Amino acid sequence: MTGAAGPQEELLGRVFLARVLEPGDEVGGRWLREFGVGEVVRRLSDGGEPLPGVSGARWAGLVARAGRAEPERDLEVAGDAGVRFVCPGDAEWPAQLDDLGDGRPTGLWVRGRAGLRMWALRSVAVVGARACTEYGAHAAATLAAGLAEQGWVVVSGGAYGIDGAAHRGALASRGATVAVLACGVDRPYPRGHTALIGRIAEQGLVVGELPPGDHPTPSRFILRNRVIAALTRGTVVVEAACRSGSLATARAAQRLGRFTMGVPGPVTSALSAGVHELLRGEAVLVTDAAEVVELVGAIGELAPPRHGPVLPRDLLEPAARSVLAALPGNRPAPAEEIAHGARTTRDEAIVRLYELRALGYVERHGDGWKLTRQAMISVRPGRRPC
Amino acid sequence: MTGAAGPQEELLGRVFLARVLEPGDEVGGRWLREFGVGEVVRRLSDGGEPLPGVSGARWAGLVARAGRAEPERDLEVAGDAGVRFVCPGDAEWPAQLDDLGDGRPTGLWVRGRAGLRMWALRSVAVVGARACTEYGAHAAATLAAGLAEQGWVVVSGGAYGIDGAAHRGALASRGATVAVLACGVDRPYPRGHTALIGRIAEQGLVVGELPPGDHPTPSRFILRNRVIAALTRGTVVVEAACRSGSLATARAAQRLGRFTMGVPGPVTSALSAGVHELLRGEAVLVTDAAEVVELVGAIGELAPPRHGPVLPRDLLEPAARSVLAALPGNRPAPAEEIAHGARTTRDEAIVRLYELRALGYVERHGDGWKLTRQAMISVRPGRRPC
Repeated sequence: MTGAAGPQEELLGRVFLARVLEPGDEVGGRWLREFGVGEVVRRLSDGGEPLPGVSGARWAGLVARAGRAEPERDLEVAGDAGVRFVCPGDAEWPAQLDDLGDGRPTGLWVRGRAGLRMWALRSVAVVGARACTEYGAHAAATLAAGLAEQGWVVVSGGAYGIDGAAHRGALASRGATVAVLACGVDRPYPRGHTALIGRIAEQGLVVGELPPGDHPTPSRFILRNRVIAALTRGTVVVEAACRSGSLATARAAQRLGRFTMGVPGPVTSALSAGVHELLRGEAVLVTDAAEVVELVGAIGELAPPRHGPVLPRDLLEPAARSVLAALPGNRPAPAEEIAHGARTTRDEAIVRLYELRALGYVERHGDGWKLTRQAMISVRPGRRPC
Repeated sequence: MTGAAGPQEELLGRVFLARVLEPGDEVGGRWLREFGVGEVVRRLSDGGEPLPGVSGARWAGLVARAGRAEPERDLEVAGDAGVRFVCPGDAEWPAQLDDLGDGRPTGLWVRGRAGLRMWALRSVAVVGARACTEYGAHAAATLAAGLAEQGWVVVSGGAYGIDGAAHRGALASRGATVAVLACGVDRPYPRGHTALIGRIAEQGLVVGELPPGDHPTPSRFILRNRVIAALTRGTVVVEAACRSGSLATARAAQRLGRFTMGVPGPVTSALSAGVHELLRGEAVLVTDAAEVVELVGAIGELAPPRHGPVLPRDLLEPAARSVLAALPGNRPAPAEEIAHGARTTRDEAIVRLYELRALGYVERHGDGWKLTRQAMISVRPGRRPC
């Protein structure tokens, strides 16, 4: 007996399922598509006749996990840690994750002020080896800083090595960055990145499929990579040995029709061998942020200046509207000044500025932000774009 | 009054023209195509009515040069220096140079024992920056050694930096290498490479368009590059700054339909920036000799084993036939052993082995040489290839 669940019921059901199903479980995804959330939750809770496509043993394992699930408690723990649950159908759900088909996450746990959907629209993944070289770390940080300076959101996995360098590069240039974790977002991993991940949650977003307190496992790392690939417009691999996990992210991006890019290195470096392998295939060689933007911004640009902002000013959230109002009309201003004018914090202002960037209202100029030409025109109805 | 010149007259005429016309002079090339060598020589010698397409001043300049030309003397000087003149129509002329159209060299001065035509059939250019890094020199030498070990001839420009490293890499692995100079081949340039170029002439070939004693000039360097590009199956650029001469060679190769390849390096190195630019276009990223051979050997392979040798054994020159006869039937042998069996020097044996390789008779195995399977079958007429 299937039936449409109310929004709250759907939310609780998906929180429950996030606890019971492993990330990327395509059989579970098919159940949701065929029977709906309410019915799948009921069948798992009852523990009766197995749903199709699983062995009796596997079904028993899922039912046992279902017996231990406490969705209300998960939401409470998450709420206390400043974590929300975003699921398909929510305004904040990034629609591009639906490209994962039945492997689509049940939902995402999100920590941070920014709107995930908006940020994901103008995002690029920068990933690579944990045990990277000095060269790789430098290249990743420089690339991420450059992307952030051009108003792009840098997505990575929060790991040691290239991931960390990419996040730090974006943060250092006062940019936007998203860490996609393979564990509960209230439980930073690796431990050595606790401070970094905390900083990302303040200035950016920390997201993941796994419920509060859950541990990472090797397969969860691999499956996390598909979320990074699907969320972004393209994936840049900075350093990767042959058969590395970052190559899996790149291949997932390719399968999803996203751009795949690689930063070359010396042919004498084993940590560039995987990237070179990628570049001998479909991936595009990139040496700096401008070349990445040239590619990912080339087609399907959400809000090219000539079309003006995509969302009418009146529909903006109050926080975004007050930041927009604080932008001077004729020159770029630093985030601090805008924050002051909007009576908010610098971090909050940055979050809103990246959203406004995704909507086509503002653009970044070096360290400052200014209104786009079209945003200026749109406030003076008497004039039209030329 | 045009007319067919005899072979000796044609040879002398082209030696004369090599002195009068600058490399790559397409107007001169058109004259040769339209009026024939004899007529062009006569008109330049007479100094009467200008041939079409040049100003009076330019014609006068050519006539003055013609007045100073002494083709018999050039041949004599060249002969004393062990240099021969190879021109279109000769058995040794590499037909692929005809792809240069009216910019085809009038002829080539050649120093060394090997047959240029045969060697060019299985050759790859390895070129790059003069002021290269340690990394670039290492990469070029390793690549060239690997190509030579797989029986490919390494062509370069004899310059400092990448060129020199490529020649040395090929020589060090007892391989075949060709230096294409932008000056008279009796007059090694740069001076610091006198010993290296001498060694290339002993174990390989030194070739060029310019007559004995002629100096290099900036434009001659550029025009020399088109000969490197046309002579070879593909060009690999190892290190090159933006707007470097090696990129001109790569672009010439592209225009001629040859393979263009690049060895990546750190994005932080200005000397890799030109290569990366190339790799973001049509060029293929390569990291070792196997990847180069995979590309240039993939199609149009002269003598794939399944088709057997391309030239009947009876038509081989005596020197090649005696080296072939000295190869043991069932195992690879080092060049020294083969030279001993053929009663010749090691250098001479290597020259013949690369010719036999081009013809499909032998293949290189590490440091040794062995008969190809098809060459073995072809001496036993009772058996057929499977």
